[in-house]
Formats: sequence, C-alpha cells, structure tokens
Amino acid sequence: MTKRVYNFYAGPATLPLPVLEKAKDEFLDFAGTGMSVMEISHRSKEWMKAMDDASNLARELMGIPSEYKVLWLGGGASSQFFMVPLNLQIPGKPMEYVNTGGWSSKAIKEAKYFGEVKVIASSEDDNFTHIPKDVGFSDNIAFAHITSNNTLYGTEWSYVPSVPKDVPLVCDMSSNIMDRPIDVKDYGAIYAGAQKNLGPAGVTLVIVREDLLDRVPEKNPTMHKWKTHAEKDSMFNTPPVFPIYICKLSLEYLKENGGVKEMEKRNVEKAKVLYDVIDASDGFYKGHAKPDSRSLMNVTFTLANPELEQKCVDGGTARGLVGLKGHRSVGGMRASIYNAMSLEGVKKLAEYLKEFQAENQ
Amino acid sequence: MTKRVYNFYAGPATLPLPVLEKAKDEFLDFAGTGMSVMEISHRSKEWMKAMDDASNLARELMGIPSEYKVLWLGGGASSQFFMVPLNLQIPGKPMEYVNTGGWSSKAIKEAKYFGEVKVIASSEDDNFTHIPKDVGFSDNIAFAHITSNNTLYGTEWSYVPSVPKDVPLVCDMSSNIMDRPIDVKDYGAIYAGAQKNLGPAGVTLVIVREDLLDRVPEKNPTMHKWKTHAEKDSMFNTPPVFPIYICKLSLEYLKENGGVKEMEKRNVEKAKVLYDVIDASDGFYKGHAKPDSRSLMNVTFTLANPELEQKCVDGGTARGLVGLKGHRSVGGMRASIYNAMSLEGVKKLAEYLKEFQAENQ
Repeated sequence: MTKRVYNFYAGPATLPLPVLEKAKDEFLDFAGTGMSVMEISHRSKEWMKAMDDASNLARELMGIPSEYKVLWLGGGASSQFFMVPLNLQIPGKPMEYVNTGGWSSKAIKEAKYFGEVKVIASSEDDNFTHIPKDVGFSDNIAFAHITSNNTLYGTEWSYVPSVPKDVPLVCDMSSNIMDRPIDVKDYGAIYAGAQKNLGPAGVTLVIVREDLLDRVPEKNPTMHKWKTHAEKDSMFNTPPVFPIYICKLSLEYLKENGGVKEMEKRNVEKAKVLYDVIDASDGFYKGHAKPDSRSLMNVTFTLANPELEQKCVDGGTARGLVGLKGHRSVGGMRASIYNAMSLEGVKKLAEYLKEFQAENQ
Repeated sequence: MTKRVYNFYAGPATLPLPVLEKAKDEFLDFAGTGMSVMEISHRSKEWMKAMDDASNLARELMGIPSEYKVLWLGGGASSQFFMVPLNLQIPGKPMEYVNTGGWSSKAIKEAKYFGEVKVIASSEDDNFTHIPKDVGFSDNIAFAHITSNNTLYGTEWSYVPSVPKDVPLVCDMSSNIMDRPIDVKDYGAIYAGAQKNLGPAGVTLVIVREDLLDRVPEKNPTMHKWKTHAEKDSMFNTPPVFPIYICKLSLEYLKENGGVKEMEKRNVEKAKVLYDVIDASDGFYKGHAKPDSRSLMNVTFTLANPELEQKCVDGGTARGLVGLKGHRSVGGMRASIYNAMSLEGVKKLAEYLKEFQAENQ
C-alpha cells in the first residue's frame, strides 16, 4: 500500500483519515443491514436516520436556527448559481452582487438570465487580490450575494457586509463553510458545494430561511424550487446518498474534534505557519492576496522567479506534498488547507518551502 | 460482520459484490496516488482517466456511435425531466409523450413548463398494467418521449415505437439501461439515473446525438444546456466523482461478465424463475403487469389475500431477502432483479415464495 500523502488540492480535497477508515470499515455493511450504504433504499429507516443525522449535525455545528431549512442537493454549487436568482428574484427589483473572483463572476453570469444584476463592488481591477472594504447593499433589491472565500485567489471575507433589514444576504460558502463560527441569522440563504470543506463532490448543502421559500415563481420546473426539496426533506427525488453519508461522517468527526470554534483556532494557526514563511522569505515567495484579505483556507503565492514554480511543485510532489500547483487564473502555487488538513501537514509544507528557498535562491 | 443479504430494492439497489470489494480495497489509495478517489482533484490525470474509462466502457457495452456524446451529470434523472424539453424544444412544435407510469407522468408534468405536450398513448386507465401497443409518433413534433421500463408497475417496452425520420426519440432508461442490447441509433437521447442498473445514486448517464446539442435556446442558464457539459466532457463543474467511479467499476464488471448480451440472457432466465412461480400459484400470487408487458427488472405482484402481504415481506426480510415491499402506488410486493442480482438470489426468493404459499394458502 502506498503511503498516504498530504493533499493540498483545492477541491475535491483531503478528508479526515478516521472518516475514510470508518466508511471503509462499514463499506459492505451499513448500520448492520448487510448492504452497502450505496445499495440501501433511500426510503429505508436506516438511510432516513443517516440523512436526519447529517442535517442535525449541520444545525448543531453551525447553530442553524429552526426557521431555516437544511437541504442536501445534487448538481453542485454551480446549480445554485441559477437556483439563487430563480428562487429569490422579485420582478422589477435588481439583484446585487459583489465580484471577488472566478466563482462570483460565474454566479453573476447566471443571475443575468433572470433579471437586472448590479455589481456593487469588485476587486477585478486589482486581479482579485483583496476583498472590497465597507461594502453596503442597496434598499429595494431582491437579494444581495457574496462569495465568502475565493478558492482561486486565496481571499476571504473577514466581515459581514451591511445589508438593509428586509434584504436577504445570500452567500456562497463552498470553500470556507465551517472554517470559523458565523451567525446564520446574518444570511437569508447559504450554499456550499461539499467537496472542499465538508465532504466529497456530488452534493451541495443549502441553508435557507423558510419565509423565502414562497418567492419562487410557479412557472419554474419542480426540481428548481428550493421549496420542493424543503417540503420533502431533500427526498423529492433520490438524493446523492454516498456523498451525503460521507458528509455525515465528516460532521461527526468535526463535532468530536471540538466543532467549528476549535476549527477556527486550528485554521488560524495553520494559515499563520504558511503566511509566515511567505512573509519571511524576503520576496522569494510573494503572497497573491493582500494581508487583510488573506484566506484561512487557500494560501496562494507566486515565486519571484516564475521558472522555479514548476520545480517547487514537483519537489513537493516528490515528498508527498501533493496538489500545490496554482489555479491557471493566478498561476504560481496554492496550498489549500481546509479543516481536514492537519497542522502536521502544514508544518511539513512550511519546512519544505524554507528548504526550497535556501537551495534555490 | 453481518451476512450479506439479497437486496431486491428498486433503487438504490444491489451492486455486484466484486465491485464493492474493489472499491473497498482501494478506498484509501486510488490508482497509487496515496489519496481516496474522493480526495483527488477532478483535474488530475488519474481522475480524468477514470472518467474517460467510464465513458468508453459505456460506449463499448452499448455500442454508442461516435456521433453521440456521453455525459455524466448530477441532479438525478428528475433533472432530465426538465432538461429534455429545455434542450430539445422547438417553438411552436408540440412534444409528444407516452404515459406508462409514475416516472412518465413526472416527465410529462415538467415538459409542460416548456410548451405544448401531447400524450399520444397511455395505460393510465388500466392502472399502468401494460405498455401500449403499436405506438407511433406524429410528424412535425419537437421530440418523442418514452420510459422504457416502469419501476413502480413492473412493465417494460419490448419494441421501439415508430417515430418519423426527423424526430428524435428520447428515452428514460433509468431502470433498465443495459438490461438487453439496444440500437442507440433508434434514439436521439437516452438518460438513466445510475442507482438502479448502473451504480449508486448521485449521477445520471446522458447519451445525446451531437446534432441535437445546438437546439437549446441561448437564454437558458449554463448548467441546463447539455451542450455546456458536452463541450467540457462533463467537467464544466466538479462532477459527482465517487458515483461515477462506482459506475466505472460496475461497467468493468459487466464487460468481464460477457456484456449486455449476456446480461439479457441472465435477465430473461432470472425473470422467468419468478414469473413462473406467480403463474403456477393458482392465483395465490397475481402479477400486476400483463404478461406481454412484463419487465425483466421489476417483478410486481400482489397476493390474493392482501392481509398476507406484510407477512410475506417480513418473512423474506427474516431470511435475508430484503426490499420486497411494493411501491405504494401499486401496493403488494416487488422484486427488483437488476443486472447485479444473481440467479442464486432469485432462486432463493422463488423457493421462499413457494414455501410461503404452501404454508399460508
């Protein structure tokens, strides 16, 4: 058997080893049924319990109030890019977005199919190196939308923008959900593709305030309405069973490990280890994100000498530090250090980066 | 460890044991990467190869011609209920459907959001006990739609309906894809949720003729267009990796076991074992589907004495014959005997049904 590597991919991403081991142990026999969890009916009591457990764990860990619904949907966060405007549009009212990178841009593009979109703040002119400051949304809009963490550029919101009382704030938290405590009441809806900080690809967690479910125009196909899925507890059609199951195990693991508050502590410590290496490198490594906008989840950087970047990526791979190549829109390197990445893994990477600098500068 | 049961659930459904064992073996180390297949980047060469393999196996096993695209999409076959009319509508031309049960009805409902729908044949008045005979679709329609197997009612088409040359025939094959050889050229598009005869829940196989990809109106969200996914080989967004991976292993297993032609032989034999018990029971068991419309995949039946049905289901469960309760829309019992169900399992069920009759009539 190959040695397990440290996986810095941006998503799909590393999962906690105990989660994988538990899933492997019960792979052929889920909950004493004599079947794999993939084979059991989604209407069976064993599966219904697992699905309830997943939702209740999300509620507990994030402090989701009872007036919010928790949905597990297929189709990826990319499907929420159209489901958000489809479900929350109000004819004649604009939708306001902040553009902080590639995923925001995609969300904006899809919203335009549904009505007028205003981009009220953007860091595009600055190659998305920062989160705009003091963002405030307008009165009389259908909804406000932000992307809380930007995987490609390595920036993360450190504050909740100002939103008029009656306007729902919608947030794409795909790449930093549960990386720190938040107050769910600040949001009308939250969505997160699982494959970064929650579990595997194939399911998206959607958290939506109940009073918003009735906004959707009747003329839309049944599967597009959050209301359809809310009324059936995400069982209107067969849900993506195995991805939800792995999310459930990951959430159990998160709870056993101190919950979201403890994750924040660890994430701050992990990120500091890497940003300290960058900042102490005398310009050998250059952080892409401005210091006040740095992400706890995705550490993006370039090398002063771009010719060394591939060598640095390859040297990491050779040591079992995998997935360090930056996204093509930024170039350079990226270390994604989600909740499931250990401090040990981050320290190994820091050591390597220091050694690489010493040998190559 | 619990003994493995015989799983007759209608979907999610039984998977081949060697497939589960292989997935378990490499659960922590996919293709020598030191990562689970769930953790590896979907842009990695290891994953891209697995996804290509899955598509190529589907092509080989079904004889899919090169002018057809093979897509692996999230959101379930229920999402195809709206994606079919969305992608294939032609303004001013009706869409024609045949209604052979619950899934057809749902497909028809969603198509109505897009334009005029004509139901040209239906067995609804007969409680969906048969497949309408000699169905022929009209000229000058956008497309024709059928559901080749009806999980709830246990009926299956044994012929391809007549369709004018320029009209694409679309088929929901969720519950009988690859149960027997077909000629893909008879169809413009085929779709199948994986969780019955292909793999686990969370992915839908879509096969669509390339010339149909340009029909879709530009105004639709990007994720809704088959064209989007075809142009990116199903990697426009992160695909449901693990479900596709299990489909790949299942298709490998299918190939090793003689392919679709061999499956047909086994399926005919398996279904005969159960239908023979029903037919020889002197009315103790009553098949729901008319003999000429019987499904190879879902054997539906009631008991002359409905009070015995729950007892019969429970007695099966006690012997490790699980998932025999009929769908609420038909009642009674149902044995789903997909490709992955062994002849041995079917024979055990047949023995049980005969014993149950002897003890209870």
